[in-house]
Amino acid sequence: MAREILVLNGPNLNLLGIREPEVYGTETLDDIIGILGAHAADHDVSLRHVQSNSEGELIDALHDARTWADGVIFNPGAFTHYSIALRDAVSAAELPVVEAHLSNVHAREAFRHTSVLSAVCVGVVCGFGRTSYTMALDGLIAHLDR
Amino acid sequence: MAREILVLNGPNLNLLGIREPEVYGTETLDDIIGILGAHAADHDVSLRHVQSNSEGELIDALHDARTWADGVIFNPGAFTHYSIALRDAVSAAELPVVEAHLSNVHAREAFRHTSVLSAVCVGVVCGFGRTSYTMALDGLIAHLDR
Amino acid sequence: MAREILVLNGPNLNLLGIREPEVYGTETLDDIIGILGAHAADHDVSLRHVQSNSEGELIDALHDARTWADGVIFNPGAFTHYSIALRDAVSAAELPVVEAHLSNVHAREAFRHTSVLSAVCVGVVCGFGRTSYTMALDGLIAHLDR
Amino acid sequence: MAREILVLNGPNLNLLGIREPEVYGTETLDDIIGILGAHAADHDVSLRHVQSNSEGELIDALHDARTWADGVIFNPGAFTHYSIALRDAVSAAELPVVEAHLSNVHAREAFRHTSVLSAVCVGVVCGFGRTSYTMALDGLIAHLDR
Amino acid sequence: MAREILVLNGPNLNLLGIREPEVYGTETLDDIIGILGAHAADHDVSLRHVQSNSEGELIDALHDARTWADGVIFNPGAFTHYSIALRDAVSAAELPVVEAHLSNVHAREAFRHTSVLSAVCVGVVCGFGRTSYTMALDGLIAHLDR
Amino acid sequence: MAREILVLNGPNLNLLGIREPEVYGTETLDDIIGILGAHAADHDVSLRHVQSNSEGELIDALHDARTWADGVIFNPGAFTHYSIALRDAVSAAELPVVEAHLSNVHAREAFRHTSVLSAVCVGVVCGFGRTSYTMALDGLIAHLDR
Amino acid sequence: MAREILVLNGPNLNLLGIREPEVYGTETLDDIIGILGAHAADHDVSLRHVQSNSEGELIDALHDARTWADGVIFNPGAFTHYSIALRDAVSAAELPVVEAHLSNVHAREAFRHTSVLSAVCVGVVCGFGRTSYTMALDGLIAHLDR
Amino acid sequence: MAREILVLNGPNLNLLGIREPEVYGTETLDDIIGILGAHAADHDVSLRHVQSNSEGELIDALHDARTWADGVIFNPGAFTHYSIALRDAVSAAELPVVEAHLSNVHAREAFRHTSVLSAVCVGVVCGFGRTSYTMALDGLIAHLDR
Amino acid sequence: MAREILVLNGPNLNLLGIREPEVYGTETLDDIIGILGAHAADHDVSLRHVQSNSEGELIDALHDARTWADGVIFNPGAFTHYSIALRDAVSAAELPVVEAHLSNVHAREAFRHTSVLSAVCVGVVCGFGRTSYTMALDGLIAHLDR
Amino acid sequence: MAREILVLNGPNLNLLGIREPEVYGTETLDDIIGILGAHAADHDVSLRHVQSNSEGELIDALHDARTWADGVIFNPGAFTHYSIALRDAVSAAELPVVEAHLSNVHAREAFRHTSVLSAVCVGVVCGFGRTSYTMALDGLIAHLDR
Amino acid sequence: MAREILVLNGPNLNLLGIREPEVYGTETLDDIIGILGAHAADHDVSLRHVQSNSEGELIDALHDARTWADGVIFNPGAFTHYSIALRDAVSAAELPVVEAHLSNVHAREAFRHTSVLSAVCVGVVCGFGRTSYTMALDGLIAHLDR
Amino acid sequence: MAREILVLNGPNLNLLGIREPEVYGTETLDDIIGILGAHAADHDVSLRHVQSNSEGELIDALHDARTWADGVIFNPGAFTHYSIALRDAVSAAELPVVEAHLSNVHAREAFRHTSVLSAVCVGVVCGFGRTSYTMALDGLIAHLDR
Repeated sequence: MAREILVLNGPNLNLLGIREPEVYGTETLDDIIGILGAHAADHDVSLRHVQSNSEGELIDALHDARTWADGVIFNPGAFTHYSIALRDAVSAAELPVVEAHLSNVHAREAFRHTSVLSAVCVGVVCGFGRTSYTMALDGLIAHLDR
Repeated sequence: MAREILVLNGPNLNLLGIREPEVYGTETLDDIIGILGAHAADHDVSLRHVQSNSEGELIDALHDARTWADGVIFNPGAFTHYSIALRDAVSAAELPVVEAHLSNVHAREAFRHTSVLSAVCVGVVCGFGRTSYTMALDGLIAHLDR
Repeated sequence: MAREILVLNGPNLNLLGIREPEVYGTETLDDIIGILGAHAADHDVSLRHVQSNSEGELIDALHDARTWADGVIFNPGAFTHYSIALRDAVSAAELPVVEAHLSNVHAREAFRHTSVLSAVCVGVVCGFGRTSYTMALDGLIAHLDR
Repeated sequence: MAREILVLNGPNLNLLGIREPEVYGTETLDDIIGILGAHAADHDVSLRHVQSNSEGELIDALHDARTWADGVIFNPGAFTHYSIALRDAVSAAELPVVEAHLSNVHAREAFRHTSVLSAVCVGVVCGFGRTSYTMALDGLIAHLDR
Repeated sequence: MAREILVLNGPNLNLLGIREPEVYGTETLDDIIGILGAHAADHDVSLRHVQSNSEGELIDALHDARTWADGVIFNPGAFTHYSIALRDAVSAAELPVVEAHLSNVHAREAFRHTSVLSAVCVGVVCGFGRTSYTMALDGLIAHLDR
Repeated sequence: MAREILVLNGPNLNLLGIREPEVYGTETLDDIIGILGAHAADHDVSLRHVQSNSEGELIDALHDARTWADGVIFNPGAFTHYSIALRDAVSAAELPVVEAHLSNVHAREAFRHTSVLSAVCVGVVCGFGRTSYTMALDGLIAHLDR
Repeated sequence: MAREILVLNGPNLNLLGIREPEVYGTETLDDIIGILGAHAADHDVSLRHVQSNSEGELIDALHDARTWADGVIFNPGAFTHYSIALRDAVSAAELPVVEAHLSNVHAREAFRHTSVLSAVCVGVVCGFGRTSYTMALDGLIAHLDR
Repeated sequence: MAREILVLNGPNLNLLGIREPEVYGTETLDDIIGILGAHAADHDVSLRHVQSNSEGELIDALHDARTWADGVIFNPGAFTHYSIALRDAVSAAELPVVEAHLSNVHAREAFRHTSVLSAVCVGVVCGFGRTSYTMALDGLIAHLDR
Repeated sequence: MAREILVLNGPNLNLLGIREPEVYGTETLDDIIGILGAHAADHDVSLRHVQSNSEGELIDALHDARTWADGVIFNPGAFTHYSIALRDAVSAAELPVVEAHLSNVHAREAFRHTSVLSAVCVGVVCGFGRTSYTMALDGLIAHLDR
Repeated sequence: MAREILVLNGPNLNLLGIREPEVYGTETLDDIIGILGAHAADHDVSLRHVQSNSEGELIDALHDARTWADGVIFNPGAFTHYSIALRDAVSAAELPVVEAHLSNVHAREAFRHTSVLSAVCVGVVCGFGRTSYTMALDGLIAHLDR
Repeated sequence: MAREILVLNGPNLNLLGIREPEVYGTETLDDIIGILGAHAADHDVSLRHVQSNSEGELIDALHDARTWADGVIFNPGAFTHYSIALRDAVSAAELPVVEAHLSNVHAREAFRHTSVLSAVCVGVVCGFGRTSYTMALDGLIAHLDR
Repeated sequence: MAREILVLNGPNLNLLGIREPEVYGTETLDDIIGILGAHAADHDVSLRHVQSNSEGELIDALHDARTWADGVIFNPGAFTHYSIALRDAVSAAELPVVEAHLSNVHAREAFRHTSVLSAVCVGVVCGFGRTSYTMALDGLIAHLDR
């Protein structure tokens, strides 16, 4: 039976392809989700996508996923660096969550080198642009297949 | 034409499958390189593999790769956390390098949360066991295709 | 005349009794509020309960309480550790606020040992599970009786 | 042609004139916006005002301003000290933003001496009560006239 | 059968009601123990009280309690912040210990925000004056009833 | 009756318009003081200007201002970050002092993010080039009018 | 009428004149107290001397002094650097206390540069050998004469 | 002629064999001293044993040892980590002191990794249970034989 | 033969008796030097007094004292906390220097708790107002008499 | 049956007896191993000795010991303070390892007070010169006999 | 055509050859400048020398050098460690500046290991006594010849 | 008689002239050693050159130099920042060692501002490209001539 995965994107990612393209590339979030969906379909996975600039809505989405999802691909944006509430929501979800970032956060400002979420995720992928998402999906599937 | 990739593994990874299997799994390094090689062949990539417990030999391998490789997948093991010499060797290699780890280093001891190498790599993958390597390869290929 | 108290619960507490019962116990938040309400009634206190995963909604609830409440019992969840905005809202409420936690936060991860809220609360109770709330209510009543 | 400026106020500023008047003065936020609007009109500037206690709504407002505003006057309240998501939203807005504070944050608690936003703003004004806003407007106009 | 509880008070608490009443109130330690004893009697609990300014005597009291007590209410005073020997004595006691403070230590000097004891106690109550002790007793009883 | 204001400029500001114009602009300090003087005259304020590269002379100027000035606009240059002696001189002046900077110090090197002076000033303005001075004057006048 | 002063000496000072004479000199504590007593008599001051290696006994001595002493000269020895319990006892004593040290603690190991007691004392004298005590007495008398 | 050695044990070690046997083993302190005494007799060494939970009594014991002992084996327990007064007493003793710990303190909580005493001791032994004491004795004898 | 002592006062001390009298008292620096001079005369000591707000002039005065002075009483004011150049000048003076402060610097802001000068002085006196200077003189004489 | 122990010595220890004899004594490493071998023979233990200045060779030696050794005595020299790769090799060896140092590292420079290896060793011995090795052997035997 | 170089010496260097000769040698500053001048003449370079104990005068000298010098050899003395104003003056000079120190500052007190100036200099030379200046001159000439 | 000097180059310096020429220049290491050799010959000095990427080989080279060299010029590359083993080898060499760097390490990343080696070297030269080596040689000769 097909798996269901939540793709969760945090603050400012709605501006992808518009904002600072020299850092994040020119594809929009819809472009990326489209490509990721095709890749998912090849692996018998269906996706639901949620983007929000609100920490509370992201927490709600993780809670909701408890009831239907097999796993989560999560790009928490800037919340990566300080949202302990999202960390608790990831723990509470009792689902495998993969942290993904478009850019290599370790090559940017020092305050982006720390993640309060990584320790409660399965793993982390960063630095490969849109490909970070497909890699995260492959990693999540491998994890679920274990 | 086929690409050539250096797969470089740092200290203690020769004991993979033997040492602390509850952390690193039971596959040996040869098993992993075998599977990775098959995956690489599917993408018209050939691999050369080097494992060493010596910082100097790892530096030499990165220098040598300048003359023949299109990119590097590098699991620096514990050197991740302090070898600025390897960081300089990665910079000096002038090749795209992807940092890969079997375990989720962020869920282990605090001193494993810092990487002196990540900032000079293309990106980082950690936490997916053997799959970290295939994901890293996919990310490297995507990077080279850009 | 009867007193009115706001019981305010922060992020992820809606999952109480569901999530990580080995840490937080098996009672749901409704169970706890029910027991607390009975205890409150014995002291001629009526409760209003608000739970939200959103920092903004918690701030709104504290602002709103200015107009009707005699005091607040507040379990800020993970916001305890970084929400200076909630700290300001507690100050702005000009009401006695008691900080309460189910678990002993000092026996958990180091980042849970710091509270940005405690300094502007009347006092703190942590570590007694559901009983933390009834203790907090007793403390708040004693404070109001001063 | 007239300029359009977003005046954006963060958490707890809705209580201005009510809460802790010895720190923030007795004028309400409406009073201040009214005076600021008159000052703006004198310089052929029209204002739109948004206040929210929610980080997500403030991010949305900054995103929205991309399509219509010439600049932003932003009092981030307590988010000043930790909201990297708002910092990214300021960067993403690609508009000149001036950070303004009623009180001299440097003469208050140590945790208020740090701003994660200042580095991506045009400049900062703090310590002049209501006048901080008119000064910020003058600075923003001078910046736009450059 | 009735429970027996050690109430243990650390340095300078013998001056309670005499010293700095604006911080600690005007009741003496005897007053407080008297009230606490009445409350305890209502719950079929008998108390033994020890106050000492000596770290060694407090350790001895905790050791002694191993042989007769069901639990401990402990206000360690300034030892809270540095006595690792008392922390070890609490661990060694193998009894449930509740840490209690009259004042809200988090609203005082920064060096009072850290407790080396909390992590080995059941829970912590602070900020409610004399009521902190009765709350601590209630919490201890609830803990023993679990 | 007209007010008298000291405009005090610290080290290296004599090179304004000459040194690093990409950071500080091309106007000379005389240009700026001329424009500021005209703005001041409009508000019935007369200015006296002192620039010195010597910490001792800046202290002397603040002491001297006690006898004749109504307030001070002070750009302390690099002394901002370490001169506790100037901080004491500001306190000793018993005059309202506004700290002003041409550039946004928070967007420059980390050691420029800290000011030992701000806590004893009325407020701070930074990042608006020459306009920082006129804004500072407006803020100072508003402060004196309170 | 004559004043009464407690001279309080902390741990290891009983070995004075015996231990490490190159740091502390060859006079015994009795010698020093004798000379200090003569100096005190000249100023119509009588001394009581207490030396203890026990933190608890030093606290007791400070509590006791509340009932009879006009002030205290206190050499806390190594307790200077960590005994918050003694700090609280000094506060609780509600007497002027002068901190005195034989050696210049600032010219010794870094951990001796910090005093947790100085902030609650009238003042500090260090570095003058036996003369530190007579200087401390003169300072205490001057303080009492204010 | 036979040597005389003080064996000095700090806080909570009286509970050895009783408290937390999974960390410290099941032998009592008397058992250990008995075995150590037999080992000492084989090397023509006689032991005197002192255990105290009081920092002051441990200081007194070190002072006293000046007059009769050839050296000291000292397990300072938790005082290891903060008692500068004991450090000074070790220095003042002008005797060779060996620091010994039953458990490997470096494999326990971070606050147990620091010793304020080691720098003034001859050497340190930790992690070998009861054998730590006999090893310490051997080391002390070797030191005295030098 | 009479001794000659330099009394050296640093920045802002010329305002003594004028500035912040609640911290520093109402006597002027001339008053204090007059009283100190009388005290010095009683001990066959003559004083020369230098006050400057300039670090360079204070260094020059210390250099000059090499040729005529027997010792120095130095109140470095705010330079205490950062002037390593003055520290070097004190070392270079090769004269006994006593550091003196009117107020108890340890009871003021945290940045005043550190002195870069104390380690190269004979000793330190702080907290006794004008009396700090006479105590410093007594200590200096005792040091010279050694 | 006889036990086999690896004695492993790290960088610069080959110069023992030659380099800085005031710190390390005049015996050569061969002398020490000779004496240690005799002591080992008395306990039916045979030794193999490896010294290397290369981190990689030390790792190789630890890996190799997996196949033949019952335990390891390891003096890691300066690698003690930063070689996380050696720490991992110690873990990977799955053998009891005793850390030994000739000098008391805690009485030397601050950067020598930290060991990244101790936490994964059985125990630590330091400060007894050559005797550190025999003590380490006794400790290792006792550990194996447990 | 001949080059012109400013040799700039900071605080306390006027005492060279007089003060602490065990650290700085016995040559006077005049001796050193004389030797340096001869070396300069050999390379067709003429020197102007300025020494001052005043930060302001050193800034003035750097500003003045803008109009006539080809480069600067600067021994900032203790200002090395904190004078950001001098750092700005070096930047403002828009001349190549070589930082030189007589002693090896890294082998002295920890606070001398940091330079706020090095980052804006061409390079640094330290530890060679008088020869540091001739080496600095050679380095400066090589830099100008590039 | 001619002196013999070891020129020792650490990791990645074999790539000089190839790697990142905008930082390190276009000359190869052979070019530099050739020029340095000519300069050395002029001063009756003969050079031996060793380059290695291996910490262990660099230690071996320093040990070997004990038997034949008069001094060492050492560019430790990235080992500068963490190799305490090399620091010990420099100490053990009992030869004057000059630390040299091509680039101004203080103007690069923060982790390059710290050297664990400088404190045990004679002096340091950095920032002058190839000329750093000739300057280091001049400094070493001057040191040997002392």
